[in-house]
Amino acid sequence: MKEFYVQDAPRFENMVITSYFCVSQMQKRDKKTGGQYLALTLSDKTGALEARMWDDFAEAVATCTEGGYAKVQGQISNYKGKWQITLTKMRNAAESEVDTADFQAVSEFPVAQMDAELRAIVDNFKDADLKRLVLSFLDDEEIGPAFRVAPAAKMLHHAWISGLLEHVLTLVKVCLATAPFYPEVNTDLLVTGAILHDIGKVKELSWKTNFTYTLEGQMIGHISIAQGLLREKVKELAPFPERLRILVEHMILSHHGKYEFGSPKLPMTPEAMLLSALDDLEAKFAAMRREFAAAESSGKAADETTEWVRSMDRPLFNSQRWLADEQ
Amino acid sequence: MKEFYVQDAPRFENMVITSYFCVSQMQKRDKKTGGQYLALTLSDKTGALEARMWDDFAEAVATCTEGGYAKVQGQISNYKGKWQITLTKMRNAAESEVDTADFQAVSEFPVAQMDAELRAIVDNFKDADLKRLVLSFLDDEEIGPAFRVAPAAKMLHHAWISGLLEHVLTLVKVCLATAPFYPEVNTDLLVTGAILHDIGKVKELSWKTNFTYTLEGQMIGHISIAQGLLREKVKELAPFPERLRILVEHMILSHHGKYEFGSPKLPMTPEAMLLSALDDLEAKFAAMRREFAAAESSGKAADETTEWVRSMDRPLFNSQRWLADEQ
Amino acid sequence: MKEFYVQDAPRFENMVITSYFCVSQMQKRDKKTGGQYLALTLSDKTGALEARMWDDFAEAVATCTEGGYAKVQGQISNYKGKWQITLTKMRNAAESEVDTADFQAVSEFPVAQMDAELRAIVDNFKDADLKRLVLSFLDDEEIGPAFRVAPAAKMLHHAWISGLLEHVLTLVKVCLATAPFYPEVNTDLLVTGAILHDIGKVKELSWKTNFTYTLEGQMIGHISIAQGLLREKVKELAPFPERLRILVEHMILSHHGKYEFGSPKLPMTPEAMLLSALDDLEAKFAAMRREFAAAESSGKAADETTEWVRSMDRPLFNSQRWLADEQ
Amino acid sequence: MKEFYVQDAPRFENMVITSYFCVSQMQKRDKKTGGQYLALTLSDKTGALEARMWDDFAEAVATCTEGGYAKVQGQISNYKGKWQITLTKMRNAAESEVDTADFQAVSEFPVAQMDAELRAIVDNFKDADLKRLVLSFLDDEEIGPAFRVAPAAKMLHHAWISGLLEHVLTLVKVCLATAPFYPEVNTDLLVTGAILHDIGKVKELSWKTNFTYTLEGQMIGHISIAQGLLREKVKELAPFPERLRILVEHMILSHHGKYEFGSPKLPMTPEAMLLSALDDLEAKFAAMRREFAAAESSGKAADETTEWVRSMDRPLFNSQRWLADEQ
Amino acid sequence: MKEFYVQDAPRFENMVITSYFCVSQMQKRDKKTGGQYLALTLSDKTGALEARMWDDFAEAVATCTEGGYAKVQGQISNYKGKWQITLTKMRNAAESEVDTADFQAVSEFPVAQMDAELRAIVDNFKDADLKRLVLSFLDDEEIGPAFRVAPAAKMLHHAWISGLLEHVLTLVKVCLATAPFYPEVNTDLLVTGAILHDIGKVKELSWKTNFTYTLEGQMIGHISIAQGLLREKVKELAPFPERLRILVEHMILSHHGKYEFGSPKLPMTPEAMLLSALDDLEAKFAAMRREFAAAESSGKAADETTEWVRSMDRPLFNSQRWLADEQ
Amino acid sequence: MKEFYVQDAPRFENMVITSYFCVSQMQKRDKKTGGQYLALTLSDKTGALEARMWDDFAEAVATCTEGGYAKVQGQISNYKGKWQITLTKMRNAAESEVDTADFQAVSEFPVAQMDAELRAIVDNFKDADLKRLVLSFLDDEEIGPAFRVAPAAKMLHHAWISGLLEHVLTLVKVCLATAPFYPEVNTDLLVTGAILHDIGKVKELSWKTNFTYTLEGQMIGHISIAQGLLREKVKELAPFPERLRILVEHMILSHHGKYEFGSPKLPMTPEAMLLSALDDLEAKFAAMRREFAAAESSGKAADETTEWVRSMDRPLFNSQRWLADEQ
Repeated sequence: MKEFYVQDAPRFENMVITSYFCVSQMQKRDKKTGGQYLALTLSDKTGALEARMWDDFAEAVATCTEGGYAKVQGQISNYKGKWQITLTKMRNAAESEVDTADFQAVSEFPVAQMDAELRAIVDNFKDADLKRLVLSFLDDEEIGPAFRVAPAAKMLHHAWISGLLEHVLTLVKVCLATAPFYPEVNTDLLVTGAILHDIGKVKELSWKTNFTYTLEGQMIGHISIAQGLLREKVKELAPFPERLRILVEHMILSHHGKYEFGSPKLPMTPEAMLLSALDDLEAKFAAMRREFAAAESSGKAADETTEWVRSMDRPLFNSQRWLADEQ
Repeated sequence: MKEFYVQDAPRFENMVITSYFCVSQMQKRDKKTGGQYLALTLSDKTGALEARMWDDFAEAVATCTEGGYAKVQGQISNYKGKWQITLTKMRNAAESEVDTADFQAVSEFPVAQMDAELRAIVDNFKDADLKRLVLSFLDDEEIGPAFRVAPAAKMLHHAWISGLLEHVLTLVKVCLATAPFYPEVNTDLLVTGAILHDIGKVKELSWKTNFTYTLEGQMIGHISIAQGLLREKVKELAPFPERLRILVEHMILSHHGKYEFGSPKLPMTPEAMLLSALDDLEAKFAAMRREFAAAESSGKAADETTEWVRSMDRPLFNSQRWLADEQ
Repeated sequence: MKEFYVQDAPRFENMVITSYFCVSQMQKRDKKTGGQYLALTLSDKTGALEARMWDDFAEAVATCTEGGYAKVQGQISNYKGKWQITLTKMRNAAESEVDTADFQAVSEFPVAQMDAELRAIVDNFKDADLKRLVLSFLDDEEIGPAFRVAPAAKMLHHAWISGLLEHVLTLVKVCLATAPFYPEVNTDLLVTGAILHDIGKVKELSWKTNFTYTLEGQMIGHISIAQGLLREKVKELAPFPERLRILVEHMILSHHGKYEFGSPKLPMTPEAMLLSALDDLEAKFAAMRREFAAAESSGKAADETTEWVRSMDRPLFNSQRWLADEQ
Repeated sequence: MKEFYVQDAPRFENMVITSYFCVSQMQKRDKKTGGQYLALTLSDKTGALEARMWDDFAEAVATCTEGGYAKVQGQISNYKGKWQITLTKMRNAAESEVDTADFQAVSEFPVAQMDAELRAIVDNFKDADLKRLVLSFLDDEEIGPAFRVAPAAKMLHHAWISGLLEHVLTLVKVCLATAPFYPEVNTDLLVTGAILHDIGKVKELSWKTNFTYTLEGQMIGHISIAQGLLREKVKELAPFPERLRILVEHMILSHHGKYEFGSPKLPMTPEAMLLSALDDLEAKFAAMRREFAAAESSGKAADETTEWVRSMDRPLFNSQRWLADEQ
Repeated sequence: MKEFYVQDAPRFENMVITSYFCVSQMQKRDKKTGGQYLALTLSDKTGALEARMWDDFAEAVATCTEGGYAKVQGQISNYKGKWQITLTKMRNAAESEVDTADFQAVSEFPVAQMDAELRAIVDNFKDADLKRLVLSFLDDEEIGPAFRVAPAAKMLHHAWISGLLEHVLTLVKVCLATAPFYPEVNTDLLVTGAILHDIGKVKELSWKTNFTYTLEGQMIGHISIAQGLLREKVKELAPFPERLRILVEHMILSHHGKYEFGSPKLPMTPEAMLLSALDDLEAKFAAMRREFAAAESSGKAADETTEWVRSMDRPLFNSQRWLADEQ
Repeated sequence: MKEFYVQDAPRFENMVITSYFCVSQMQKRDKKTGGQYLALTLSDKTGALEARMWDDFAEAVATCTEGGYAKVQGQISNYKGKWQITLTKMRNAAESEVDTADFQAVSEFPVAQMDAELRAIVDNFKDADLKRLVLSFLDDEEIGPAFRVAPAAKMLHHAWISGLLEHVLTLVKVCLATAPFYPEVNTDLLVTGAILHDIGKVKELSWKTNFTYTLEGQMIGHISIAQGLLREKVKELAPFPERLRILVEHMILSHHGKYEFGSPKLPMTPEAMLLSALDDLEAKFAAMRREFAAAESSGKAADETTEWVRSMDRPLFNSQRWLADEQ
């Protein structure tokens, strides 16, 4: 464990610390008074910190690279409300020196436990073909492990290691809770869709040291990537019922629910309709959580709304906090 | 019970029947060959039937009125695929002659049972104020009984007697099933919203003999009517916590989820967001059921989609039926 | 009267002034060179001024609060084209020390005169019920006075004390001027709508020291607030003709003219249609005035358009000024 | 004057009449029983009537043409709620036999009087150049007379002879009534725009015997036609102030107020903004009048709304009639 | 060759013909006068004809099926402007009795010649991988022949046998003509996209006896079907350059150019952009041709526009015909 | 030729240069430390450079003006990644001192050659009237020369001297290449449209020292300006065939292809449809070129997309560069 995390800055104001960081950005800039300095962004799993190194940065420049790790010494301060660090020492750090888990946000739930929960649900499938299909993904040598560590997004909901698995598991549970009210829905089929709908994200996103979109992600998109993976698995599992293949494929293609969100088809079956609605609900609550946290940490009072949320075209309001506040 | 219902027509082809109907429409028209005839629409809770009376309709015209009941005798036939009846006798029927329950579609669930289920849920509220509020509606001398018989819509989802209560009860159950996954949600508040969100329909709709919109329904709308009723109840219950009043009012105003659906506000709180999403899901599945039934009764095969559904801009597809069909 | 107003800054460049201000914002910040300083926004009815206090601000911090008044001494200067003040003294000022009228923009028309004009118009109503209704608002102990001082908006049109009354009075006059051309319009009804359409703003906005939205304003909105107030008044005035109640309520609910502007109903009656169109016209001309003034004060020439006006998706052009410029 | 007009049909039920009509449509069709008959639409200024000629129509076919006049004899009857005439005689009628004024709907206001009113307003212009410009149109040998007889539309508002002049005159008056409330507006400029904004309709529409769009109307449109006419007039009037030319041209180009209504520019000046809003108001009230009349003549009660009005996406409601109905 | 085609009806008015047809629809209906008759739609490659069989249709009903062939005898007549046939004899016809080419519209260009032209272009590819890829489709035992006979659509552009090949070949030629003006474009890549973009139609459409959508076509769509086929081919051709695979896949996914047309991605590369634009142009001109032909065959004059074309929200106008008409 | 161009900055880092520039902006600002300095933007045809003059700028202020030329001496440096110049000397420069060609971006193709190419194409017109029409523009004393030097836009495609001619010539060539595939298209008419469609830009834009919109450009727009010019030319050329006039006018009015882009009419003829589509294609490829260049010069790798392109709502991707990068 590191001795200092970005989120600890307030407790270390004006103190000198020594710690490891990921070098997210590094750039030489001109001083107003002549000469140059080094401007950096250092990050770990708790956030990012602006850094400045005013002198003697030759070694830093020579040995460190963006996307790599560094060991630094410097003083924490607050400038215009933002925390920063003024470096006195900086050198490259080998991956062996650090605990890489320190440098990326991870799900608060243990992967093994989430995986076990998901597999237990799949084990209960009545439909042997769908079970075979889902397991062919979970047990795939490449896709399986990636599915267990991938984030669910670059910046929005569940943007942390194993966020995809966390998102899928919650969605599966909500599916299981609501399906009984809709007798038109085949539960195994629905859960299959919930598990596979975002499987394309294992190739749409890259999560080496930061979370970014791959080129294939940008040009093909996780919906069509997932469809390609499905077709390949179905071929391997042959004979596989053609009707199930079409129904699962339809759920994947339509789960964004609207053409303008990149779904080439709109949900036509009960399972596709329910999956799409519950996935949207998950996304909205994830956004709500982020906004509530941001509002609270920026010092907003209980009777104030969040900032305007552009993706929803409205501000949000934390009713629980307001009611609690009254008592 | 009537001896003949509209839905029985196929079993009575070319037979003469005598029965009671609601006179939905009545109009004199010119025969091509000179003279006039009487064109009518007769209905009961199972549907509507075109009727023609070619001669001797003076008494019928003199005594019967649109919206009233009539006793008729006539022969059932099929013309261009539609069932119709050619009348030989027709006279007005007093309300005392008929069982009014024969003339309007009613929920398949007993009202008393649904009401009891709903009240049991309200009894479990932890929040005494919200319980008081909901009960003030359920126990209101005018609103309460209306709420238990009103349909939920003129033609779309739950367009039958007690359809509103049926819709509300299902929605409340889905709310209770999903709320545990969203800790931001106050369950009592959510359920209050689910019970009251459509309460304005008791004045938006009229369900005397047919289901129609009242003028107030067209010019004010059930959202604003509900808001007015809420304000009146809150005044009667004073002192009532202002914060709860605002949060419930917000759920009512925002439950359609989009401005273009007549919501003057978009959902901002976790409860409003969840209520709006689940209410939308209910409406979509109700539409899906209607479309699947229509497709099946029009003779569509299991591998055919329904007709194009304009409100959703797509056809739908009954996956369960297709999978069952294979086996 | 204050000895110095924000708008006087150019005449006082590099001079030391002493005056009272409203403390809109106050924040401690770190100096680049170590230590802290105080960054403030000071305002009066003529605008807002950035302030800096570099040293000895302990008393200021200890006694002053955001939203309160302060007496300050400092030097006016211009930094990057913006006026600012460097404070040497600052202390809290009691409300009794200041003339609160100095701190908020107010309508250029006397309230008493506008009120009298409006009441004279209401006195001429032929319809006694509508007259009763309007007077019940104007004479209400809480709503009446609020209606006479409220601004019409937080930032857009008529964002000054008594701006609501000013907006309403102009709108009423334009209604009276145009109604004769539309015989379908009931003038008393139209004017009632014009007076009451924005009455909900007395609770949607707060204008203590700045203009802001109340939480109820954000979650309920002035349209639905107004509808609630109307229902309460109608109850008090009972018996009140139901038809007039519905028609007035419809005008309030539909006056924004479009669902996406928060109207739950579209204008269906001649009065609602005309009111909505003229209210929109008022808003557009108010925006135009602001833009023309801004263009002129930013030094734009007579043959230049204003900046791009996002709400209208176009720039505007002052034709009068251009024609005058030619002569 | 004709002895029988289309609107008189109810008074002549089952009677034989002889009268002149315009032959709007004429077509031979097959009888079900073999042989042919003649199906026609006959019209005059009060409406259109379906006609059938079952036998002996050789002369009719030989001498009559669509768009021409005919003298007919036949019996009036009502079939499925629609009035029709069964012809026994029909022959071509020369234009000299008829009073062409009988065959097209005309404004209820005398042309000479409307023209005089308009000219009186123009005479009051303070701006000599704008007066010259407007008069150059009114006094133009081709445009002037066409402007005085043209309809304002093919089917929608003011679709009758001299409807354009009637529309323009009303619009000018509403402009004069509202302009005083908007000091940013140059009244002469505004009125010039009101008079010329639709001048392109003299070439967009054809009103020989029916009202139709010309090909130029369809491919160029009245906005661009008007702009072309303006440019030609300005050239003839040279020297004409360039600034006035641009401001008038801008009003013409922007008067539809929205790109999707065919305006290549949005209103940027006070005059263009006001003109566009008032022109839209005129169109909406004209539509409202048509809908109220249609509702009343189709037997709708005072408390019923009109049919759904597609262009406005809502039904309308005649508040005056409802209020009168109560008393 | 059949002795009578649907398009020959005008030449056979009132004559009795004997010929083979495809039975598109067949339904028993009630006569007004009691009893039943047979209502049918008969079709061949030149169009469809309504048919009625009033008596003695027991054999017809017993032996014929929708989608099969029939030999009929009947009299041609015109009823309300539509041609129809009154049958006196009808029996099932074996596929061996007919020339199936008589029953579906086919491209006016020989398949072999179009195929040869296309292959010649592919032979000229500089890029060996893309050549391999395209040939793997053209030479595929299942896809290849289907690609050569499939229509391009159910009803819109190129809705005839081999219409897909015809559309593709034209598009390829326009691509080759325009590519030289856009140096950013890789011609082989562009042409590959043009050949493969619609390849999914071989499974989206069915063209046994009529043209319809398959269920897979409705639920997956030709874009995603094509993507699936591409992935399979690329696997078979391994090793295949990943970059080319992504670029071709991107062209397929984005060729509809807009999300609302079912493209899950928008064109990002020069080739995707150009392909999408030229494909759209092809579709528009195909629509224009249909509209011009329909206008001419419905008797419209050279100076009249076509009917309103809903998909383009405007009428069209045949400029060539109008100019020719003048001379 | 200047000794230093803006684009040469990297080669002159920290060196002192002397050169001529256009003074795009000039402003006095306050130093933080008291006193003032001069902030300027200096530009030439290769770009713009921020400049600062800290002392002794009295002469500069006294003699130089925005939009004029200046001779300066100063040192090149890089501040926060942007190049700038610190001036030590600055004085006004007469137009005679400079080569004005140094100060505006110009087409890379010689004007005379482009003009000759265009005229050769016009010479080949079969239609003498269209040839007369086009030449009347090219040979016009005012329009002709302006057409040869005007840019095609203020900032977007072909924003350089003679950019309009360059755009038109390319468009004409693409028209000639594609027209043969669309037999509905009259090539002379199409090319006439291609040459004249943007002719209004000669009055919409001003290109004295920078490129800006004229007031007429903003209030009338190049589409309507072009239509006005066409009408004047047609009058001069009388007799000119009315049909050709309408068809050319229609192409001009509809070439933006969508109402929201300011076209008052949508393309209805084959020529208007093709012209509009190819013009759009030109604009898109021009944007693509800019974005590819910007991405490359900002150091993006071959496998990265460009920045998000707002006008197209997507990023773009240079496929050629990526494929080349692999080899």
